[in-house]
Amino acid sequence: MKINTCRTKGIVAAKEAARVRVDLGLIHFPVMNKNQETIGSAVTNLDLHDIARAAKTFGVDSLYVVTPYRDQQKLFQEVLDHWLTGHGAQYNAKRGEALSLVHICDDLEQLIEIVSEKWQLRPTVLSTCAQKRHSSVWSFDLVRRKIKNDDCFLILLGTAWGLAPEVIESGDGILPPITGAGAYNHLSVRSAAAIVLDRLLGTGEEETI
Amino acid sequence: MKINTCRTKGIVAAKEAARVRVDLGLIHFPVMNKNQETIGSAVTNLDLHDIARAAKTFGVDSLYVVTPYRDQQKLFQEVLDHWLTGHGAQYNAKRGEALSLVHICDDLEQLIEIVSEKWQLRPTVLSTCAQKRHSSVWSFDLVRRKIKNDDCFLILLGTAWGLAPEVIESGDGILPPITGAGAYNHLSVRSAAAIVLDRLLGTGEEETI
Repeated sequence: MKINTCRTKGIVAAKEAARVRVDLGLIHFPVMNKNQETIGSAVTNLDLHDIARAAKTFGVDSLYVVTPYRDQQKLFQEVLDHWLTGHGAQYNAKRGEALSLVHICDDLEQLIEIVSEKWQLRPTVLSTCAQKRHSSVWSFDLVRRKIKNDDCFLILLGTAWGLAPEVIESGDGILPPITGAGAYNHLSVRSAAAIVLDRLLGTGEEETI
Repeated sequence: MKINTCRTKGIVAAKEAARVRVDLGLIHFPVMNKNQETIGSAVTNLDLHDIARAAKTFGVDSLYVVTPYRDQQKLFQEVLDHWLTGHGAQYNAKRGEALSLVHICDDLEQLIEIVSEKWQLRPTVLSTCAQKRHSSVWSFDLVRRKIKNDDCFLILLGTAWGLAPEVIESGDGILPPITGAGAYNHLSVRSAAAIVLDRLLGTGEEETI
């Protein structure tokens, strides 16, 4: 079985149509565990479905699943194949539409190389983080305007207990934490991704009472 | 084992502190399947976790899981017990904090009765729906302002392929569909719930570049 690295598919996708130049990277290594240790996390089936469906809804170009583990890459390529060409494609074609945005990468370095090659431009790399940090914080409003201006962004999402500090520090900045009424800030990566995409790419509301 | 119906817990919750008077109802019957037939859906573990975590983040009072099936009620009470008082409570207390918002109800009629008793006021019942409908559409902005004004809302979320028409029609209106760049509108209920709560209750962003 051939693993679909993002390289070939990405280039094809870029040629298909003029879309916003926004990609997502779902990072499985290096991320943190609840004891603030650096770990590699397992790819979660529902992350792919939920985040791909949100990505498709909001016009994201690609969702890159970043894991160095070959067994995980192989397993999730099988999941993708089920929905793209296997029985899942007949059962519910809408899942395939979303999951066609998903590609598998080894690490952040390879991801940035592939995205840069796709757009012929190095993207601005922004991390998401539930805590405030000293990194440069880019407001959602600013990034939204820059996307409309055809600027190129790669948004990194952390699994487990979030991106390792070295990932955040290697990028160009972070998006503000998503906050609510109190101190609780433990959204799932699926919920955080949906909110980030709505804030950056949502068309808002058309109808009122 | 005793099933935690929402009645007792809800009243306690209301007495604890002044919070926004917003509740969520996650409906498992009657909902639609992909052939537009009315069905009852199975409760999904990750729905409880993701939506409870978002509800806790955004200050929602309670998440009511609505299913008439006793075996499902029993199963998910066991899941809740694991995180609230069992091993899960030691392993990750943050999950218990969120899942303490979850209560189990039989049907929409019971849910409205319980919420009305809790707030001593019948809530405005709004459905969420991926399609535009002829029902009265309430803008997110209007509902957000009314929540700040201490108005009382019950927001209904549909599992499977969405709420059955009779549920939508029995309420006071719908929230606008969440739309993005194109025609694809197949967000998971987890993603839709997160976006709805951010739009209605998010505090926005504090820092800019």
